[in-house]
Amino acid sequence: MSKKVAVIMGSDSDLETMRPCVKRLKSFGIPFEVRVISAHRTPAAAENFASHAEENGFGVIIAAAGKAAHLAGVLAAYTTLPVIGVPIKTSMMGGLDSLLSMVQMPKGIPVACVAVDGADNAAILAAQMLALDPASMVYSDDTTSPVSLANKLAQFKAAMADEVAEKDRKLQSETF
Amino acid sequence: MSKKVAVIMGSDSDLETMRPCVKRLKSFGIPFEVRVISAHRTPAAAENFASHAEENGFGVIIAAAGKAAHLAGVLAAYTTLPVIGVPIKTSMMGGLDSLLSMVQMPKGIPVACVAVDGADNAAILAAQMLALDPASMVYSDDTTSPVSLANKLAQFKAAMADEVAEKDRKLQSETF
Amino acid sequence: MSKKVAVIMGSDSDLETMRPCVKRLKSFGIPFEVRVISAHRTPAAAENFASHAEENGFGVIIAAAGKAAHLAGVLAAYTTLPVIGVPIKTSMMGGLDSLLSMVQMPKGIPVACVAVDGADNAAILAAQMLALDPASMVYSDDTTSPVSLANKLAQFKAAMADEVAEKDRKLQSETF
Amino acid sequence: MSKKVAVIMGSDSDLETMRPCVKRLKSFGIPFEVRVISAHRTPAAAENFASHAEENGFGVIIAAAGKAAHLAGVLAAYTTLPVIGVPIKTSMMGGLDSLLSMVQMPKGIPVACVAVDGADNAAILAAQMLALDPASMVYSDDTTSPVSLANKLAQFKAAMADEVAEKDRKLQSETF
Amino acid sequence: MSKKVAVIMGSDSDLETMRPCVKRLKSFGIPFEVRVISAHRTPAAAENFASHAEENGFGVIIAAAGKAAHLAGVLAAYTTLPVIGVPIKTSMMGGLDSLLSMVQMPKGIPVACVAVDGADNAAILAAQMLALDPASMVYSDDTTSPVSLANKLAQFKAAMADEVAEKDRKLQSETF
Amino acid sequence: MSKKVAVIMGSDSDLETMRPCVKRLKSFGIPFEVRVISAHRTPAAAENFASHAEENGFGVIIAAAGKAAHLAGVLAAYTTLPVIGVPIKTSMMGGLDSLLSMVQMPKGIPVACVAVDGADNAAILAAQMLALDPASMVYSDDTTSPVSLANKLAQFKAAMADEVAEKDRKLQSETF
Amino acid sequence: MSKKVAVIMGSDSDLETMRPCVKRLKSFGIPFEVRVISAHRTPAAAENFASHAEENGFGVIIAAAGKAAHLAGVLAAYTTLPVIGVPIKTSMMGGLDSLLSMVQMPKGIPVACVAVDGADNAAILAAQMLALDPASMVYSDDTTSPVSLANKLAQFKAAMADEVAEKDRKLQSETF
Amino acid sequence: MSKKVAVIMGSDSDLETMRPCVKRLKSFGIPFEVRVISAHRTPAAAENFASHAEENGFGVIIAAAGKAAHLAGVLAAYTTLPVIGVPIKTSMMGGLDSLLSMVQMPKGIPVACVAVDGADNAAILAAQMLALDPASMVYSDDTTSPVSLANKLAQFKAAMADEVAEKDRKLQSETF
Repeated sequence: MSKKVAVIMGSDSDLETMRPCVKRLKSFGIPFEVRVISAHRTPAAAENFASHAEENGFGVIIAAAGKAAHLAGVLAAYTTLPVIGVPIKTSMMGGLDSLLSMVQMPKGIPVACVAVDGADNAAILAAQMLALDPASMVYSDDTTSPVSLANKLAQFKAAMADEVAEKDRKLQSETF
Repeated sequence: MSKKVAVIMGSDSDLETMRPCVKRLKSFGIPFEVRVISAHRTPAAAENFASHAEENGFGVIIAAAGKAAHLAGVLAAYTTLPVIGVPIKTSMMGGLDSLLSMVQMPKGIPVACVAVDGADNAAILAAQMLALDPASMVYSDDTTSPVSLANKLAQFKAAMADEVAEKDRKLQSETF
Repeated sequence: MSKKVAVIMGSDSDLETMRPCVKRLKSFGIPFEVRVISAHRTPAAAENFASHAEENGFGVIIAAAGKAAHLAGVLAAYTTLPVIGVPIKTSMMGGLDSLLSMVQMPKGIPVACVAVDGADNAAILAAQMLALDPASMVYSDDTTSPVSLANKLAQFKAAMADEVAEKDRKLQSETF
Repeated sequence: MSKKVAVIMGSDSDLETMRPCVKRLKSFGIPFEVRVISAHRTPAAAENFASHAEENGFGVIIAAAGKAAHLAGVLAAYTTLPVIGVPIKTSMMGGLDSLLSMVQMPKGIPVACVAVDGADNAAILAAQMLALDPASMVYSDDTTSPVSLANKLAQFKAAMADEVAEKDRKLQSETF
Repeated sequence: MSKKVAVIMGSDSDLETMRPCVKRLKSFGIPFEVRVISAHRTPAAAENFASHAEENGFGVIIAAAGKAAHLAGVLAAYTTLPVIGVPIKTSMMGGLDSLLSMVQMPKGIPVACVAVDGADNAAILAAQMLALDPASMVYSDDTTSPVSLANKLAQFKAAMADEVAEKDRKLQSETF
Repeated sequence: MSKKVAVIMGSDSDLETMRPCVKRLKSFGIPFEVRVISAHRTPAAAENFASHAEENGFGVIIAAAGKAAHLAGVLAAYTTLPVIGVPIKTSMMGGLDSLLSMVQMPKGIPVACVAVDGADNAAILAAQMLALDPASMVYSDDTTSPVSLANKLAQFKAAMADEVAEKDRKLQSETF
Repeated sequence: MSKKVAVIMGSDSDLETMRPCVKRLKSFGIPFEVRVISAHRTPAAAENFASHAEENGFGVIIAAAGKAAHLAGVLAAYTTLPVIGVPIKTSMMGGLDSLLSMVQMPKGIPVACVAVDGADNAAILAAQMLALDPASMVYSDDTTSPVSLANKLAQFKAAMADEVAEKDRKLQSETF
Repeated sequence: MSKKVAVIMGSDSDLETMRPCVKRLKSFGIPFEVRVISAHRTPAAAENFASHAEENGFGVIIAAAGKAAHLAGVLAAYTTLPVIGVPIKTSMMGGLDSLLSMVQMPKGIPVACVAVDGADNAAILAAQMLALDPASMVYSDDTTSPVSLANKLAQFKAAMADEVAEKDRKLQSETF
């Protein structure tokens, strides 16, 4: 089966922004855990979680944080699992501070940064990474026997294209 | 063995910036191919490459581009493999244009963005992703029998820490 | 008669922002089609549309998109028709991300960028381009026999000046 | 034959940046004139030029300026011809000041903005506009009988793709 | 008596932002006129106004505009009177576009820029300029015989200090 | 005769940037003094200078400073003379820090800000202000009897236009 | 006992933003005074306060201001006490103007800048500074005999970690 | 005697930028240690250092880092000593990325940020903090018996003012 994904946020105030991430993981059938760990207020928890993430069955860590947004980098310091960063929008510069704090990591310790508030895409990216392991089978919303995560992603992509095409058809029939 | 990594750049003028990426992949023993494909000047090549990347044995695509930097997003549109974006520094705003063009992807099609000119980290991130597949064995610079990529990454991280520690020791013995 | 203008948006959520564009084209009597095509979610549709736009009677393509905003560039990659980009305002940096993603195109593939949310101006610019063809005759709101688009634009410019002059007169008569 | 393109710069210090524009127009066989007109220091010349550009045989105006970069907008105020703006790179913010001053035009008076220092693309965009007129025939570098500008653009696009493909082939044969 | 101040805005939508300017001029007893003149939509009116401003009794021109905000620069091109620019806040980047368009004027044609939405300060700055002429006498709100504008400004500065000092006293007596 | 202009810089390292200001004042025949006064390191000198500037014969204060660039604002706090700010280019963001620190003054205390490194324009703006006083007569480079500063400015503007027109003529005769 | 902290704001409109600072100082039992002093409107008060702050029993000065935000720097010019700057969020660029004006101080006169609207952290930082003096004893909310400020800070840090840990436990028990 | 100051940098490539900090501490006679500790590559060393800094005799920690620049925040997470952050200039945006990553700390864990590359000011700020402890006596360059750090700072401020005044005198005697 697929490894687990950790969804870690620096503050529980980020939960609403991260719900689409959790929802997407669930719809893909990927097992996950959601945590509040602060790089600055509970650094020991951050170290502890990241150091043991691999042995605890995690394959990917998603970290969401705003402003100085060190969380993703701090977790990445303690693991060789891929860490995905979700910069949270802030009232100062719309999240540019969060983005720069997350993406501009020094040589040796990468963070895979997605768009500001890109919670949904973080889940999809995590799925793409996990799908590199052929053993990643998932039960999802609408399946009773496991399918490979790679297939799941292909179906998702096709459904997404259909949805846009449907909107296109609808718009073309509108009178302006 | 490990799947291949594609290192694609929008222009051959980005080659020098991307050399540390190629060098790191090589030192990790990860097979790779280096290509020049332009999202705008050779869009058919971009579509063709990305559509068949998975069946051609690629596991991760690294795309480097500057300014409007659409390359990573355009490739991601045609594959479900994870795509890592390396925003190239530009003389206008130091690469902020490249960064925003790459990282701010719409819902459904993520790009895993690293730092501006973060070529080395793109390779390390690719390795972290590939290591999720337990079958990812690599021969690297200093090995004659294959080791798991996960072990390779753990060694790399330890060596990196040693290197900083050594610099720290040297600095502490300096007289100011 | 005038060639058609394509008004393409990356998401139907951009429709309200683009209504002034559609309205202006209509008031100028320029034939148009409105489409939802995503550079990332329906790349084949984007390629298909742009490749055949000229033979399908289009003269100008207007593309509106936000954030990583690749749509205009992707369409431009497949056609030699002029492509006008409308960067959509985003909550992150007010559309600066969209603007830079659209305007900073690489050598060889230009996009004619207008202001953030500049939907109305995109239509006027399209009209100015089409008017370069002396055969561009249009029926507009208030005309029953066709007039040249060039004349239409001259009238529009004059009316606009009158409107500002009228506001100026009104303000001068106000007591402060 | 094709209408003329005006290449206007706010200062002769912008000439080197604009040479690729002139060179491209010449290689396309498009007739052009190069002028130094300052929106602020010779406003009467700006008004005079733009007001009579159409009757003087111009089809498109390219305006290059840096910093407050009002030139394109000021010319657009006096004509209904399409005006292409080339924001010149500045030492302050790399041309972001020029870009914003040019692209953020008010409703009614569009400027078609290209990338910072995007001189070459301005010429290509002008060609794309002029090609909307089927009568736009050009003699270019390598032609003795006139060809349509539309054909010229198609050839240019194909040659550009070939050039990138050639670089791709060369890179693939390189040993890393 | 004092010369007149012109308060010119590019659009009547800027009127509410500029009211504090008008109110301040009135309270200082400085004669003024309020106009709507667009650099782009009524360029002839701009030229006409600025060219004759001095002979029409104006001493200072205040120009308010947003986005590409060329108004102040265009007026300055036609006069040697000091022109004060008020960059209007925009929804894109909070007026940074307006500010850069106004303040980054080329050599030879200065604009005296105040803060984004700095309407009140524009009036005070105009008063400071006019006060350089010892003949600048004004009747203001609370005066029946004319006083010098220089004295008026000194009183204003003192009153402003008193107001802050009063707030300070009040705050010091508050219990936290 | 004309009142004096004070050219104050926060550090003598700004002298080269400010030379064009001094040179312009000299060529206009305006009397001036050049000072190094730091808002932060010699605040008492700043207070002392600004408080007595008017009685010491100054009409306008030009203040140049970089980075936190408080100098113009601090001087303005102690005088009702108009204060012109010249934001000095910095290696961080090209002077945007200096610009924002200077221009964003609070209500009541305006600073007349010119472009980053706009030393020459600061002098011209000062001349425009001083010319509001009809008594401002100057001896300049090429005059032996005093002329009004207003006339001087008109001649300067005309000469500037001639210079651009000359460059235009030269460029038009160039073969491309 | 602990020395006093001065909480100075440039305008009483900043009071609500600064309440968390005052509240934190009170909860730590640190004596404080709250003042409205404007660097520009009451510069003499600023000089007077800062010059005598040390002899009046203050140990740290916290200065909050927005936009050109010179207050912290102006106070720092007149004292050798540490000055903490709180840049206030503005509607233009979200406080980036305030931040740059405060933090980019010239050599010799530092300001200790915290986050935009970082009122609470300013108080904590002040407490950390005061705690360097072993004599800093405080009575706080929940203490009847004085404790050292250093202990108070350690307790605060532990309580903060507990609070995050509690939120983490709660989230882990939530069903998604 | 004074407590020690720790000068910690994320990479030994920051050493030249930080030399003025070390030099200033030395000239003030403040004992210090210089270390290379990476928040990401040697996180255990960061934790270890910060956790025991107080008991090891440190009073203030100065942390210099560039780009994602998490170092200051990570150290602050493990101590209640005041942490001063020095954002290092980067080729991307001139250090704005470093600045935002450092200064925008979340509630509870402040970092006292100085200017980009503000190494010297970091030392002065550290001295101002240490001087809050009346026991902070120092031997400095030019003293053989210890003086209080507070006195040292007062002398330094006076000398700095003298230096500027001297430059002012020199400039006043220059002929322009």
